[in-house]
Amino acid sequence: MNKIFLVLVFAGVPLSVIGTLLHWSNIILFVIYCLTIIALAGFMGRATESLAIVAGPRIGGLLNATFGNAVELIISVFALKEGLVGVVLASLTGSVIGNLLLVAGLSFFMGGLKYKRQTYNVFDARHNSGLLMFGVIVAFVIPEVFSMTMNETKTISFSIGISIILIVLYLAALFFKLVTHRGVYQTTENEQHAHEEPEWGKGKAITVLAISTVAVAYVSENLVHTFETVGEAFGWTELFIGVVIVAIVGNAAEHASAIIMAYKNKMDIAVEIAVGSTLQVAMFVAPVLVLISLFFAEPMSLVFTLPELISMVTAVLLMIVISNDGESNWFEGATLLAAYLIMGIGFYLL
Amino acid sequence: MNKIFLVLVFAGVPLSVIGTLLHWSNIILFVIYCLTIIALAGFMGRATESLAIVAGPRIGGLLNATFGNAVELIISVFALKEGLVGVVLASLTGSVIGNLLLVAGLSFFMGGLKYKRQTYNVFDARHNSGLLMFGVIVAFVIPEVFSMTMNETKTISFSIGISIILIVLYLAALFFKLVTHRGVYQTTENEQHAHEEPEWGKGKAITVLAISTVAVAYVSENLVHTFETVGEAFGWTELFIGVVIVAIVGNAAEHASAIIMAYKNKMDIAVEIAVGSTLQVAMFVAPVLVLISLFFAEPMSLVFTLPELISMVTAVLLMIVISNDGESNWFEGATLLAAYLIMGIGFYLL
Amino acid sequence: MNKIFLVLVFAGVPLSVIGTLLHWSNIILFVIYCLTIIALAGFMGRATESLAIVAGPRIGGLLNATFGNAVELIISVFALKEGLVGVVLASLTGSVIGNLLLVAGLSFFMGGLKYKRQTYNVFDARHNSGLLMFGVIVAFVIPEVFSMTMNETKTISFSIGISIILIVLYLAALFFKLVTHRGVYQTTENEQHAHEEPEWGKGKAITVLAISTVAVAYVSENLVHTFETVGEAFGWTELFIGVVIVAIVGNAAEHASAIIMAYKNKMDIAVEIAVGSTLQVAMFVAPVLVLISLFFAEPMSLVFTLPELISMVTAVLLMIVISNDGESNWFEGATLLAAYLIMGIGFYLL
Repeated sequence: MNKIFLVLVFAGVPLSVIGTLLHWSNIILFVIYCLTIIALAGFMGRATESLAIVAGPRIGGLLNATFGNAVELIISVFALKEGLVGVVLASLTGSVIGNLLLVAGLSFFMGGLKYKRQTYNVFDARHNSGLLMFGVIVAFVIPEVFSMTMNETKTISFSIGISIILIVLYLAALFFKLVTHRGVYQTTENEQHAHEEPEWGKGKAITVLAISTVAVAYVSENLVHTFETVGEAFGWTELFIGVVIVAIVGNAAEHASAIIMAYKNKMDIAVEIAVGSTLQVAMFVAPVLVLISLFFAEPMSLVFTLPELISMVTAVLLMIVISNDGESNWFEGATLLAAYLIMGIGFYLL
Repeated sequence: MNKIFLVLVFAGVPLSVIGTLLHWSNIILFVIYCLTIIALAGFMGRATESLAIVAGPRIGGLLNATFGNAVELIISVFALKEGLVGVVLASLTGSVIGNLLLVAGLSFFMGGLKYKRQTYNVFDARHNSGLLMFGVIVAFVIPEVFSMTMNETKTISFSIGISIILIVLYLAALFFKLVTHRGVYQTTENEQHAHEEPEWGKGKAITVLAISTVAVAYVSENLVHTFETVGEAFGWTELFIGVVIVAIVGNAAEHASAIIMAYKNKMDIAVEIAVGSTLQVAMFVAPVLVLISLFFAEPMSLVFTLPELISMVTAVLLMIVISNDGESNWFEGATLLAAYLIMGIGFYLL
Repeated sequence: MNKIFLVLVFAGVPLSVIGTLLHWSNIILFVIYCLTIIALAGFMGRATESLAIVAGPRIGGLLNATFGNAVELIISVFALKEGLVGVVLASLTGSVIGNLLLVAGLSFFMGGLKYKRQTYNVFDARHNSGLLMFGVIVAFVIPEVFSMTMNETKTISFSIGISIILIVLYLAALFFKLVTHRGVYQTTENEQHAHEEPEWGKGKAITVLAISTVAVAYVSENLVHTFETVGEAFGWTELFIGVVIVAIVGNAAEHASAIIMAYKNKMDIAVEIAVGSTLQVAMFVAPVLVLISLFFAEPMSLVFTLPELISMVTAVLLMIVISNDGESNWFEGATLLAAYLIMGIGFYLL
């Protein structure tokens, strides 16, 4: 498995560069880019896991989430620069439902095939439930409803206000987790990880992570330019590409590492990747993009389309109910995947 | 009590047949049919209870739910054949809110008058919460919102896709409960039931169940034809008849057995009947009807009216919050009944 | 602190009377009225706390909630008499989100600065969650959706029906708490309060409470008349004044006493004040106002504007998820306050 990824990376990255320069067919480039990103994501997953062992489960989870969403942030900034506000909102939606339903769903499902009952920190799960309720339901539903009777200027002002509140609360959440309540809700199980040997040393892990991130960013940006041709060839709408394709390829890093963690029964990290990444998208990436968009021609407000909003809201409600007990099994994973499938078909048909 | 039911059945069934053949007044027939069904439901409840003691609480609960919903499925197929899509969606709504609010509400209330605190398996309650969130909120809200901007053909395609996913996940839930995780979340309390004596032997119970089911189906089908006259006489709309009258009479079997179980403090079975029946309607009866409707002139999509959808969504949210702790009391029952009353008045006034 | 309040009351009440009679500038009167009410609320908080120690935490909580909402009820009746239905619905909304997000948020936040983890009775929290789901989500969302296709007369009839059901269930909840299940869900921690010494005796506390309530009512009523001028001067809409200003000043009593209780680590009382007050507004004050409005020219229905309804619904969902574990910390308080801030900005911009 690791060898296949090694070959894919050392073939995929040069091929991506050459193919881009020589303007190969977009369909072929699309396949090369996707495989390369997935292989790079595998490396990122291994590097992050090594760092996670050194840094402990919580910081490890944050690392995973950060290196998954850095790519998204870069792509979204380029898209905003080109005025593609709709695509950015769609890809934010895709990240939220992709992380909550697809990444967590696959983790619960694959982990559950090996272990009958898997547990994770119930305090973290409840803390995350509160943040999901705030970051997605309060912060996204309120502007949707209020903006119905607001003019454009007020909608943008409201979005800026909400964005600042989201970023402040996101930083407060980090402060809570890492400073004032560090270790307060720790369960005993986590200590075990300290005894594990990391695959790579700290230096090598950081180097691999850094190079992979740059490579993923380069390939991802070119990937975006193939979407239009690919969409026409396969009959995919812009919304479907934004919500589903970007989410799957863009979150490949999370997929890879979350499933590896679940398979090793380290559910604390798997859940932290899936839910932590969702929270980072909703409470950090989305509001930062709103603020950055003010420097471009077309500002972005926090007003999604109704199908996008309702997909995120129902995904959050489902996740809160399923993760509330701090336990998972294959069937809970299957339920999340089934919800993702329903939304995926819906966005395909829209 | 049992004697009254015996008299009602042995008088009601012949009277139903004779009255139907002689075309008696629909108002009189309506009363005869309803009493006969309720009496037959009493027999079904006792037969199912006997089988439940033999088969254990979980299979017993499934049996209850199955024999309650078989009647509904048959009536709905006849209704679809006549193109009454609106009535079928209304009766599905009525089954969902009727089982969640009226059946569970009466069980909690009546059981709570006798016992201060009644407990049921908290693992099952949480498992059911996840399924309710998926089967009602995700699977019914998403097509409602997405279909707003879809044409007729795409709405039907989307409904077919969701229906297949619902049926597959429903079968997966059975596989999870009965095969991979059988006994994993068992609480000790359930073992006690094994020591009880069933009222009837396995053979007699199955015979009574089979004959009662056939009789209920016959009477129910005729009952449907009286609705128009009765509706005009009492000023009931088609929606009110579908949501309230069909739900109360059609779920009489569940009512009877769930309340009997609650009164005997077997809350595991009572909750399994109420919530299990809801899940069977949402995740099996509804999608099967969508697929069957494709063979008829007018296909049925999974798009309810907004009052129907919001009633189901709020009923599910209320049930999840109330059942989350694995405990019930008379006041929780009263709350569910009050919610049912509000929705009932709403459908009456619509 | 107590001395400042004493000075404020003995200066504020006479100044309020004199200023009102001499028709001082509304802006100046607004400031005098607000400070006087807040100072009076401080006295009410101390008196209520004394009574709470004598009467036990639960009755004490009810006392707090009652003496906070008596003021609101009186103001609202005067407003209904003048046909200001929109202002009354806005102030009901403001009370619900103000108590759930601002009062509970400040209690959790301030208490959390002193204590790392604060606990309260988890049975009460779940009981309250069920009531919030019923009293706000079922009882307010259903008439909103159903009334879309109802005429005026039916909407009023539906509101009357729901109001009677709400009042009956509210009385049933009191009967449940104080009679049938008194002490059933008691946690051991509460007994400690019995050993505390009340600041004032029963007689003095009741006298202070009675006089303060009358004074608050007098000042509040005059305060309402300054809103129009103040709104014009500061650019506040009627909706913003109803939802935000009335909620903050009108619930100052709850604010004061809930925060004092949280600071003394008596979270049972703090939560009882915040959530109990919300429930009293939704299940008692609102339906009583609907019934009283029938005697006036313009009847009030239970149909809020969509921003009002969605604010209350998301506030309730957030509170249920956050309070579900019977624990609080400063970050949970910050989350509730952030949600209040988002809604406040929204109503300001509307």
